[in-house]
Amino acid sequence: MNLWTIQEADFTPATQHHKETIFTTGNGYLATRGTFEEGFPNDRRATFLHGVFDAAPLVVTELANAPDWLPFEIFLNGERFALDRGSVISFERALDLRNGVLTRRVEWESPRGERAAIVFERFASLAALHALFLRVRVTPQHASEIHVRAGLNGTPISEGSQGERLLHWNWQGQGARDGNVFLQARTFHSDIELGAAMRVTTTLGNEVAREFWDVRGEPTLALRVNAGAGETVMFEKTVSYYTSRDVEKARVVECALQELDAHKNWASAYQANADAWQEEWERTDVVIEGDEEAQLALRFNLFQMLIAAPRHDDRVNIGAKTLSGFGYRGHAFWDTEIFMLPLFIYTAPHIAKNLLNYRYRLLDAARAKAKQNGFEGAQFPWESADTGEEVTPTWLPHYADRTKLIRIWTGDIEIHISADIAYAAHQYWVATGDYEWLIAKGAELILDTAKFWAARAEWNNANARYEYNDVIGPDEYHEHVNNNYYTNRLAQWNLQTAFDTLNWLNEHAPKKARELEARLGLNAARLDKWRDVIAKMYLPALPNGLLLQFQDYLQRTDVDLAALEPRTISVQQHFGIEGTNETQVLKQPDVLMLMYLLQNNFSEKQVRLNYDFYTPRTDHTFGSSLGPSIQAIMACKVGKPDDAYEHFIRALRADLYDVRGNAHDGIHGASAGGTWQAVVFGFGGLRVTKEGWSIEPRLPHHWTRLQFRFFYHGKQEIVEIVADGG
Amino acid sequence: MNLWTIQEADFTPATQHHKETIFTTGNGYLATRGTFEEGFPNDRRATFLHGVFDAAPLVVTELANAPDWLPFEIFLNGERFALDRGSVISFERALDLRNGVLTRRVEWESPRGERAAIVFERFASLAALHALFLRVRVTPQHASEIHVRAGLNGTPISEGSQGERLLHWNWQGQGARDGNVFLQARTFHSDIELGAAMRVTTTLGNEVAREFWDVRGEPTLALRVNAGAGETVMFEKTVSYYTSRDVEKARVVECALQELDAHKNWASAYQANADAWQEEWERTDVVIEGDEEAQLALRFNLFQMLIAAPRHDDRVNIGAKTLSGFGYRGHAFWDTEIFMLPLFIYTAPHIAKNLLNYRYRLLDAARAKAKQNGFEGAQFPWESADTGEEVTPTWLPHYADRTKLIRIWTGDIEIHISADIAYAAHQYWVATGDYEWLIAKGAELILDTAKFWAARAEWNNANARYEYNDVIGPDEYHEHVNNNYYTNRLAQWNLQTAFDTLNWLNEHAPKKARELEARLGLNAARLDKWRDVIAKMYLPALPNGLLLQFQDYLQRTDVDLAALEPRTISVQQHFGIEGTNETQVLKQPDVLMLMYLLQNNFSEKQVRLNYDFYTPRTDHTFGSSLGPSIQAIMACKVGKPDDAYEHFIRALRADLYDVRGNAHDGIHGASAGGTWQAVVFGFGGLRVTKEGWSIEPRLPHHWTRLQFRFFYHGKQEIVEIVADGG
Repeated sequence: MNLWTIQEADFTPATQHHKETIFTTGNGYLATRGTFEEGFPNDRRATFLHGVFDAAPLVVTELANAPDWLPFEIFLNGERFALDRGSVISFERALDLRNGVLTRRVEWESPRGERAAIVFERFASLAALHALFLRVRVTPQHASEIHVRAGLNGTPISEGSQGERLLHWNWQGQGARDGNVFLQARTFHSDIELGAAMRVTTTLGNEVAREFWDVRGEPTLALRVNAGAGETVMFEKTVSYYTSRDVEKARVVECALQELDAHKNWASAYQANADAWQEEWERTDVVIEGDEEAQLALRFNLFQMLIAAPRHDDRVNIGAKTLSGFGYRGHAFWDTEIFMLPLFIYTAPHIAKNLLNYRYRLLDAARAKAKQNGFEGAQFPWESADTGEEVTPTWLPHYADRTKLIRIWTGDIEIHISADIAYAAHQYWVATGDYEWLIAKGAELILDTAKFWAARAEWNNANARYEYNDVIGPDEYHEHVNNNYYTNRLAQWNLQTAFDTLNWLNEHAPKKARELEARLGLNAARLDKWRDVIAKMYLPALPNGLLLQFQDYLQRTDVDLAALEPRTISVQQHFGIEGTNETQVLKQPDVLMLMYLLQNNFSEKQVRLNYDFYTPRTDHTFGSSLGPSIQAIMACKVGKPDDAYEHFIRALRADLYDVRGNAHDGIHGASAGGTWQAVVFGFGGLRVTKEGWSIEPRLPHHWTRLQFRFFYHGKQEIVEIVADGG
Repeated sequence: MNLWTIQEADFTPATQHHKETIFTTGNGYLATRGTFEEGFPNDRRATFLHGVFDAAPLVVTELANAPDWLPFEIFLNGERFALDRGSVISFERALDLRNGVLTRRVEWESPRGERAAIVFERFASLAALHALFLRVRVTPQHASEIHVRAGLNGTPISEGSQGERLLHWNWQGQGARDGNVFLQARTFHSDIELGAAMRVTTTLGNEVAREFWDVRGEPTLALRVNAGAGETVMFEKTVSYYTSRDVEKARVVECALQELDAHKNWASAYQANADAWQEEWERTDVVIEGDEEAQLALRFNLFQMLIAAPRHDDRVNIGAKTLSGFGYRGHAFWDTEIFMLPLFIYTAPHIAKNLLNYRYRLLDAARAKAKQNGFEGAQFPWESADTGEEVTPTWLPHYADRTKLIRIWTGDIEIHISADIAYAAHQYWVATGDYEWLIAKGAELILDTAKFWAARAEWNNANARYEYNDVIGPDEYHEHVNNNYYTNRLAQWNLQTAFDTLNWLNEHAPKKARELEARLGLNAARLDKWRDVIAKMYLPALPNGLLLQFQDYLQRTDVDLAALEPRTISVQQHFGIEGTNETQVLKQPDVLMLMYLLQNNFSEKQVRLNYDFYTPRTDHTFGSSLGPSIQAIMACKVGKPDDAYEHFIRALRADLYDVRGNAHDGIHGASAGGTWQAVVFGFGGLRVTKEGWSIEPRLPHHWTRLQFRFFYHGKQEIVEIVADGG
């Protein structure tokens, strides 16, 4: 088994959209779904560029599917190659995780009997983020005139949330220069200018004719070559993108054309890309021995994180579905800070810093949201795109009755994200020791979210305590609950950490402390209020140490989930939205999640008590895709590594096996990021504090060896764990 | 002044969308907005084919902007011709209403100084509904290589209700045959197959090169010709469309290609089209002397009706914005039956029959709507498209705050449309004497809508009367009113007319009478109920004869509209939706409308009383665009032809002058149809009954002569009215 390659040996049209997601390639500047260059009926062709959003109905804004760089049609003696025509003799597709190269090998026979072997290879260069490379080799069985058409498609389609097909690009111009072709387009609403350029070459010197088909919106180079029987003709298509997010508007085409000049041939571009990937894996790879499936699948999940990670830009975040599909329209959630970010904090701190800076840059928008809701401080949006304004849809048409609408509440009341972001900023600091960043940006993130929590806290006079009522916790099976433990406790942590941060600043950067105190109005009265909120925060729990999911949680119906097995739908689908809300069933175990985040605060006994209580009450299989990796970690903590493995493998398979049936919408980014945490913090038992790190491994019984790497305070550490029997 | 030509002498980009609407050409099978062949930034290019709908978010379904037949780019020695580049030396555009030919003459100088005179002429043939013709003549000042690119664009954009750009066509195939090019595409949701074919010729024999640019989705013919200084090169582009609404799916491309063969040259196609238009005008034209503006504008309005009228198909209706824009997404309202249909009943009964058959064909959908609402009989949808289901959007995003939604109630409670349709069926019969149609279809329309009205009537026990509560009348400034006079009275008329129809059937077609009685369940008990509803229908009025807009209308605030002048916004914008609802201000005078429809039922004195009362309470200028022509008719009835003229000219100018600022969305079809009624029934004073017709002319003082034509019981009548002073 090749532990670095995702492979398929035949093509099934019914699963094409799932596979398009799986075979996504990218470099963190952009990503392209694994569609076929020549097209296939109803394919979902998409290339997403980080930060290139445009307005869309209902969902507010979405990543604008960019002009398509893939089009490459092949005609053999006049017959168009396509997998829905003629006969497919053999088919093989392989994604090499080691270097991000996607290869497709096809033997095909046309309706009239022309036969050829065709190999497509492509990659988005990790060494040159604006450049994309495609190589096509055609070997006809008989002497053939081979006609190819390579284009840039300026009318790429976004499939909308209601099945509508949307276009985001307004044609601005196109042309040819020195044999290369360019296209210029602009988003209709967000006014982002894009330049794309293309070079097409044949490497065997048997080119007979070349035409520039200057059709508006789809400039195309048409090449004719003659090939003898069994002779291989090779084509190289190189494409580059620049947008007005990169350079000034007037220069996008010029920069795209220049980029082409910087990449003279496939071989050197291929090597540069491979070198860049090697560096990446040296920081990131995890070795698992004794479990080939887990080894390969984990690398796949890491690869998905690496191709979505913005190395070049701190104005973007990673969407819940990365850059690999239309799901959630490219919006970012807490999925980044809690599930994906730890991977980067520990293996690529420069990327983690970019992601956190994205939040820092959008502090003003978070302040505006708080203000609009009558609070002070920074309230981050539940869904975030380019501007930092709340982009959660408020209403969506009811799936069954179009005259009805479903109100989406998460944008209004799933408020824990502000504490999640503060937590992530703090975690970054603890792991990296990046004091400079803490002073310049992190402290302000922590202080201003704390300010929000103090303002948002509701004083309950009867019980002399502060509360957060009418919220949604991470467990979205329960809406409009009061005093969700996760939310209340993490808000309290946020306030406490704000004090710690302010104290630290006063000691180490007093000028900054004074500046922030002045700018954020952190006067004595306000800080007294903070202390009061911390001291009197209501944290619903039983005397035995059971933390309550939320106030009155125990009054909900206790459901025997095992009795519903075998089950192929979520509990929410089983009982309905309202019905599920009345039960104790959780979409994800957020009390356990909190115990993971604040692990020093709970005794082993208390963790076990809560683990045993909440585990059978959680919809692990069809609830949140975020849950399983955290559940795996907590299973390790209570000494159940084989139970942990069951949850871990569920997370690991989320996309590869399409276990939830929605991988066509894109990669489950939080699940992918979570698998790394499950391995490192769960099975590996890594524990990091300001004082240092330690491990307490608990490997699944069949693992013989585990090796992982991480940075602690700038130094790469390599941990190798060998099982007792190994 | 040319009284048959709409002209403009310069091009103003700021009004381009308005002018695109004005210069729409068509033939009732399709229509194409007056955009430029070569494109212009942000143009709204659209060709709509009758009945070709596809699903769209929020608005349910919309006319799918069809693959674009216009693309024709011209390069002079390598420089692309476009009006946003270089210098426009002269510009002229003219729409010849006599034959539907749109001509554009431009003298243009390129950025580098190439200069040429270019003439574009195009028409949709009225003689061959599937065929479209474009002729382009290019006369360069200096010897030039002229490069043209003529294509079919398979990715036409629909501008959505929220500013989004939608695409409805899924590419299926394309190619070239015998030098002609074809494209095949399918709507994404409604599964309508479309074939388009194109031929391009140069007529001067100086073609140097021709290439087929087979770019997917936009097959293009690229031609190169050489022209000497001052020499004119002529190009002809002929395009044809077929869809699976016309022929079976597999044949759409073949039929489109065959259609091209049937039209060998511009000259003969031009003549055939001109002949067909001449016939059309011989049925339709109205001559006004003494008022050139009215003469030309009326012809323009008639032209807009003629190019939207389905001569070939009884499965379609005319949308509120005809086929000329994206407004109301191609949906049909009562605008057809009450405002547009009379023109066709009297000048082209075969078209009127098609339009009524559309409703007849969709009776089952109307029955389903009634049933869904708990009633029996046929309740027609407020907005209707291809299937006859209700396609009124139920919710639209609030224009100012996207988290809010506006509930659109018309689809639920603007129920008068069912009586309007019955009225139209009856009027068709009265004017045409088409007994065959009445027996086959009309009677069922009248009887089954009556059945709905009887079921929908609410018995008010306290007052011993039947009522229709919680409705919207034609006057949409007042929602959720009780006992709208127009609705109640026309429902009563519908029931009474059902009895008359049943009696007539029993006498003249007893077999049909028995069939309908059996099929519709018209038993004694049901008919007794009908009689009871007729007898006890509540018709709110004062003892002096003033009909009340609705029950409790007089309790609303009486507003002095004159005091709001000068005014550039509607009363609804002035007071807000809720505020206006509290006033007596009407969007349109629907009591007067009723008096027009049922004119034999009211004394002259009563008409005058109501006219004087409601006229100052109506928002004539910015209320409904449907109102002015009816107001004009009623002004004539009360002997005020010069007041009438003021309303008439407002209707006449609606689109030409864009008096409401929304002509970019398409022609106001009801206003256009209403102007014909204002002339014929208002100024001409035509009155038609089963027994015959009469006229009582009341010309505006400056009109010297009025001539109009109409069919009565199959015979064309010509009326000529000469003013006393003339």
